[in-house]
Amino acid sequence: MTTSDAGLLADLNPLPSGLDSRLRDHLTFLIEVDRLKTVLRQSPLAAADRRENDAEHSWHLALMVMLLAEYADEPIDTGHTIKLVVVHDLVEIYAGDTPIYDTEAGVSQQEREEAAAERLFGILPEDSGRQLRALWDEFEARSTPEARFAKAMDRLQPLLLNWMAKGGTWRTPGVTADAVRGRKAVIGEASTTLWEAAKHLIDEGERRGWART
Amino acid sequence: MTTSDAGLLADLNPLPSGLDSRLRDHLTFLIEVDRLKTVLRQSPLAAADRRENDAEHSWHLALMVMLLAEYADEPIDTGHTIKLVVVHDLVEIYAGDTPIYDTEAGVSQQEREEAAAERLFGILPEDSGRQLRALWDEFEARSTPEARFAKAMDRLQPLLLNWMAKGGTWRTPGVTADAVRGRKAVIGEASTTLWEAAKHLIDEGERRGWART
Ligand SMILES: [Ca+2]
Repeated sequence: MTTSDAGLLADLNPLPSGLDSRLRDHLTFLIEVDRLKTVLRQSPLAAADRRENDAEHSWHLALMVMLLAEYADEPIDTGHTIKLVVVHDLVEIYAGDTPIYDTEAGVSQQEREEAAAERLFGILPEDSGRQLRALWDEFEARSTPEARFAKAMDRLQPLLLNWMAKGGTWRTPGVTADAVRGRKAVIGEASTTLWEAAKHLIDEGERRGWART
Repeated sequence: MTTSDAGLLADLNPLPSGLDSRLRDHLTFLIEVDRLKTVLRQSPLAAADRRENDAEHSWHLALMVMLLAEYADEPIDTGHTIKLVVVHDLVEIYAGDTPIYDTEAGVSQQEREEAAAERLFGILPEDSGRQLRALWDEFEARSTPEARFAKAMDRLQPLLLNWMAKGGTWRTPGVTADAVRGRKAVIGEASTTLWEAAKHLIDEGERRGWART
């Protein structure tokens, strides 16, 4: 847990009295989510020598949706898909980022994220909390074309960063090019074209020795 | 200019041959925009002791749109409004961030951003470039309810961060509480409720000595 035993950020400098209580809850939540900017991912940035954080990553996915929606196998509502990517990592504020190739952490990930969701979305007025929770559930279930496309972006984006880093997390001990293909295959549930491109990058990375054979 | 004399990021490790040229242009652009994560704003984060970057900021605005749209004076299409905030700062990749209280930089800001837009959106296939350019133009012109609301979020978000910092950029030499009110008044073009709340935070900040009278 990144910050689970701390209170709310807004408690450090409480909002003034006199605000409508519904709006106060919205603003308290919007201050709390500033923490997403401190949740580090494994991926190295292409533009600087540091790891990416979840907020930057989520923004990047939103822009990818706008530009790559044309490659979706099924028509998608881009506005809705962007909402899915904007909220998809919020629970990591309390549950932390689970590295994609860390199978042990994956076991307890679901429980940690469920508890984090209860706590985080519980800051909001109930209807707003339910709205974000429904988006997060939709993303996780991948039961709509929008959720499948959002998930595909979530897998394609670090692949681009790993390409730029000539391996990046592909070089994690024990990881092979086939393991990378396995984790990225969900891209193919949303877009044949993008999955072909992703495989091409992985194949080429393997050929160049950036991922183990 | 942050990076204007450098080549494209993707040139540092070119994408492999064999990709469709349209998709290659999309991916080249999506790698280039990684630079937005390195454009620093004046605002201090609430969750960590460092300045915010434009990518984090843009993500934060997207989430604000989703939660605060209910306070808009006119009905807005939230999906479209989120697209506006996702692209609104892209030109700063080449033009840099212009501090809101820096009136001298403001003079040449428009020219610098125009040149940056030509260059950045020119990386994309023409129709995709036009799509993003149109969103940026709409945001800048504030001629739609969605653009006015997006702009309101752009002004309200740093106000929340400045509140958490007990002043933040309000303490910039020469800046008064009235100057802050003046720069934030566009919030009132989109939402009476949010503008009342913003004024309340500024009033209270002034009363506590975080902004000069
Ligand atoms: Ca994640």
